[in-house]
Amino acid sequence: MLPETLRFENDILYILDQRRLPGTVEYIPCTSAEETARAIDSLAVRGAPAIGIAAACGVALASRSGRSAAEAACERLARTRPTAVNLFWALDRMKRKLALLPDKDLYPALLEEARSIHREDRENNRLLGEAGAALLPPSCTVLTHCNAGALATGGHGTALGVIRSAREAGKTVKVYATETRPVLQGARLTVWELLEDGFDVTLICDSMAAALLKRGKIEAVITGADRVAANGDAANKIGTLSLAVLAAHFKVPFYIAAPLSTIDRTLSSGDSIPIEERDTMEMRLLPGGGTLPERYTLWNPAFDVTDASLIAAIITEKGVARPPYGESLKALFHEKGELP
Amino acid sequence: MLPETLRFENDILYILDQRRLPGTVEYIPCTSAEETARAIDSLAVRGAPAIGIAAACGVALASRSGRSAAEAACERLARTRPTAVNLFWALDRMKRKLALLPDKDLYPALLEEARSIHREDRENNRLLGEAGAALLPPSCTVLTHCNAGALATGGHGTALGVIRSAREAGKTVKVYATETRPVLQGARLTVWELLEDGFDVTLICDSMAAALLKRGKIEAVITGADRVAANGDAANKIGTLSLAVLAAHFKVPFYIAAPLSTIDRTLSSGDSIPIEERDTMEMRLLPGGGTLPERYTLWNPAFDVTDASLIAAIITEKGVARPPYGESLKALFHEKGELP
Repeated sequence: MLPETLRFENDILYILDQRRLPGTVEYIPCTSAEETARAIDSLAVRGAPAIGIAAACGVALASRSGRSAAEAACERLARTRPTAVNLFWALDRMKRKLALLPDKDLYPALLEEARSIHREDRENNRLLGEAGAALLPPSCTVLTHCNAGALATGGHGTALGVIRSAREAGKTVKVYATETRPVLQGARLTVWELLEDGFDVTLICDSMAAALLKRGKIEAVITGADRVAANGDAANKIGTLSLAVLAAHFKVPFYIAAPLSTIDRTLSSGDSIPIEERDTMEMRLLPGGGTLPERYTLWNPAFDVTDASLIAAIITEKGVARPPYGESLKALFHEKGELP
Repeated sequence: MLPETLRFENDILYILDQRRLPGTVEYIPCTSAEETARAIDSLAVRGAPAIGIAAACGVALASRSGRSAAEAACERLARTRPTAVNLFWALDRMKRKLALLPDKDLYPALLEEARSIHREDRENNRLLGEAGAALLPPSCTVLTHCNAGALATGGHGTALGVIRSAREAGKTVKVYATETRPVLQGARLTVWELLEDGFDVTLICDSMAAALLKRGKIEAVITGADRVAANGDAANKIGTLSLAVLAAHFKVPFYIAAPLSTIDRTLSSGDSIPIEERDTMEMRLLPGGGTLPERYTLWNPAFDVTDASLIAAIITEKGVARPPYGESLKALFHEKGELP
């Protein structure tokens, strides 16, 4: 049984500490925006939609000290991680709500807004899961990267949501998961999450995907995304671009599964998506103990950007967008009732 | 200063224990073929040419107990690692020598043969290094994978030999090295070897190569090989195929640097190269301690095969072969004075 990623109880946001998985299931109790921000900074909670939900809860917690505390919380939380747009999307939504509220009783209304963001994300994942499941053959093997599962979202998951929905629709889905260096979200989170849910899953190193695809046993590559530009270029965990290029070479469809909250219509292409570079200590720790020498120079970008031309479809809660994405994504937003 | 990979002194083969690098420089003294075989099995010594040299020394050590002990040593050593053909090439050469020798005084003659294999490998690396250096622009940045350096050979290196020779020819070469999961030969060996030699080198995770190539800052990708088929298909460390596909996508030349002893003319294509699958414990150890759960299923192929169509040139001690490799590799062997 999969534990909840985020839980709000008695004015405390409990964040599942994903750094300790798969060995230990433990929650971090957060009673302030600062504690929430630190949990996001340190990757205790990660995954674009989950970060957005956690940040919204952090704003609600801060609002107990008044309007300016809630506004400061928005600023602090916006400085945690630059790439995933769901964070800024959720903070904007909280700010819009805040602006409409009278000074007293901010907290219950903002908490309700955070709960709505959480609930809607879970519902959207179910909808996009069903839309994506239709793309998979009745029996197939899928390759995924990083963790775009229940652990990364409000529940069900994006890439793993598609896999879950396919099974619910009676399909047989076997999964290969890349370990996803340097933080190993694939090894620590995805394999664990899928095993807890009874899936047949095999772990590989990131570098083994080419050999696997060459064997012709993968029917689809599916990942989540941290930010998708208006033209369909998609930022996601470092290594996604490599899988997309390999999928094209070996003629396997590469799919992105993400809610519309991941789509940043203010950016015309992926070139302007900010890419977070993280502490190189993430790469220095050696398996079995010890670290690489201090004199080593390392480069540690946390994300890369996959060209829209390499993406066969973008799976959302409003349906499946196909190239050219400039038009198809716009149409999904229209359908959602938002102006262009 | 780089320590020697293999050293023979007073009837003892000293093998640099590469599992303990970069932290500790320590030699394993081998006085038998069995000890040598265990050092190869356990990756204390690795790299196709270095394995061949070590195995030849192991046969010489065994021959002190007579002809049948030397023959048994050949069989034991052949069972260590299946992919690198240099191992079988070196053992065949020792067997041919053994067949020509009278029963007494096997040891000095076989030791001299092993020393010749070592010396010739070092010389060939210098020749292939010079041939490959001519392919690089005067100032460039090169991406390499795993370790194809002095540590993997009799000295100088194959892929890193090209880089060393380019510097000797007055060129400026900056290097990016992939960490090379799961055993991290890039992080533990290549970066260390190049820093000891004063190079500007930056470490990345395997999954970051695509983002690096996309930035347009890499002029060439160069790796070694463990076995090259007659048509130019090349087996090398897992992850090489991924780099070759990425290099083609981003229009960067992908080069293989390997001595002719790595070319297996008995195989018409790479499809029949045996691929070693290793103990999954290599992938289970977590950075900073701990292991992945036992119930995890993992796949751990140690090599992949890159199609000849993805290889811009194969750099050997007899010169640079270009496609179609069936003809160009054959021509290099003719030049070497061997029959077709």
